[in-house]
Amino acid sequence: MIETNPAIRVSEIFGPTIQGEGPLIGLPTVFIRTGGCDYRCSWCDTLHAVDNQFRHEWKMMPVDAVWQSVVELSGTQPVMVSLSGGNPAIQPLGALIDRGHGAGYRFALETQGSVVRDWFVDLDVLVLSPKPPSSEMRTDWAAIQACVDAAQEKPQVVLKLVVFDESDYAYAKEAAARFSRLPVFLQPGNHTPPRPGNEDASVDLDGIIKRMQWLVDKVTRDRWFEARVLPQLHVLLWGNKRGV
Amino acid sequence: MIETNPAIRVSEIFGPTIQGEGPLIGLPTVFIRTGGCDYRCSWCDTLHAVDNQFRHEWKMMPVDAVWQSVVELSGTQPVMVSLSGGNPAIQPLGALIDRGHGAGYRFALETQGSVVRDWFVDLDVLVLSPKPPSSEMRTDWAAIQACVDAAQEKPQVVLKLVVFDESDYAYAKEAAARFSRLPVFLQPGNHTPPRPGNEDASVDLDGIIKRMQWLVDKVTRDRWFEARVLPQLHVLLWGNKRGV
Repeated sequence: MIETNPAIRVSEIFGPTIQGEGPLIGLPTVFIRTGGCDYRCSWCDTLHAVDNQFRHEWKMMPVDAVWQSVVELSGTQPVMVSLSGGNPAIQPLGALIDRGHGAGYRFALETQGSVVRDWFVDLDVLVLSPKPPSSEMRTDWAAIQACVDAAQEKPQVVLKLVVFDESDYAYAKEAAARFSRLPVFLQPGNHTPPRPGNEDASVDLDGIIKRMQWLVDKVTRDRWFEARVLPQLHVLLWGNKRGV
Repeated sequence: MIETNPAIRVSEIFGPTIQGEGPLIGLPTVFIRTGGCDYRCSWCDTLHAVDNQFRHEWKMMPVDAVWQSVVELSGTQPVMVSLSGGNPAIQPLGALIDRGHGAGYRFALETQGSVVRDWFVDLDVLVLSPKPPSSEMRTDWAAIQACVDAAQEKPQVVLKLVVFDESDYAYAKEAAARFSRLPVFLQPGNHTPPRPGNEDASVDLDGIIKRMQWLVDKVTRDRWFEARVLPQLHVLLWGNKRGV
């Protein structure tokens, strides 16, 4: 039996603002950022939703309450909802997706692909973001394959790969080769991610732009013409500021 | 009879680099910028391809020669080709598209929609960019409808609308209402466009970013949740520099 009102561990709900990265870049979106993660990437840019030391800021919210927040933020007008984290796949989000679909909302999930859920098939967009060597995490390719399989070709499934350096780039090529049917989005890493309590610390925009240029050069010299290269637009526009 | 090797008036051919705007943002692309335009927008950012005083820089190139340039730039690897201008619709591009398709290349055309061509149906992507009031041009909505009709639902057709101010925004809403089946991309205008011979003059990035923020606020307050809002990424990254 599927529980219709399970509790979701929420770090923050905000929006609508535009999606800053990946296949839906530029689209007005309400963001549900869940709390907790099975990974701990060296350059994590959402530690406030990942590290247990911030769990006092997280709230266990029943689906009813989460849905109510989304409806209020969107003024009852159907909108794209981004489910991110942390790793949102460790939360019971199936009932929320059902509720939203009934009202015409759409759902995109962003996950590293370490945890698979039956309800992936109900998503509109599944962004799989395996973590490259610079993250200091190990990739379980079988788990990522299981995520792709769970989607059953119903949602749009894409790979989004963060690239800091040559070895991340090689990893991105490997991921693309393993999942050759999935569209690939490459994203230059932010080596000056926000730190909880110090979000206003300045971002090294010049460094991010240089890495973007390097990545564009790599891709075009390699003639990897199917990959799309997109920066985190919200960082270019607004730095590390939260909630925009 | 269709001529197989007509001459095309070319301002510049460059790339591959990533597409900086619109639905293909981030995609490696070879750009063919044609010379000449039936419009003269007040804020034109490609005057070197528009104003007759620069026609000595344009070359009449047979399709064979244009195609050879594309093949060389792409190292024979199929890539997205952007046909822009000026207004590329005033050039005979059908034969080039046929040639490229035979080799697996794809073609996106960017035009204001003032001139319709039978070969629009052969494109992969048709970006219609009607010019708002700030351009000081008048829109012939029937011509734009004729462009949509010529595409016969074969290429992906989208609207891309530059917005400088409230009246441009109202115009964008009108365009979206007239063509309610087309995806809409809104783009904040660049009020410091490059001037031929003075391309290195600085861009008012702060101003562009402020306009972007204003446009995001407008769209989200209006709950226009289907519109995508994207800046000219190449301008954010590289200013007004040409050929990147």
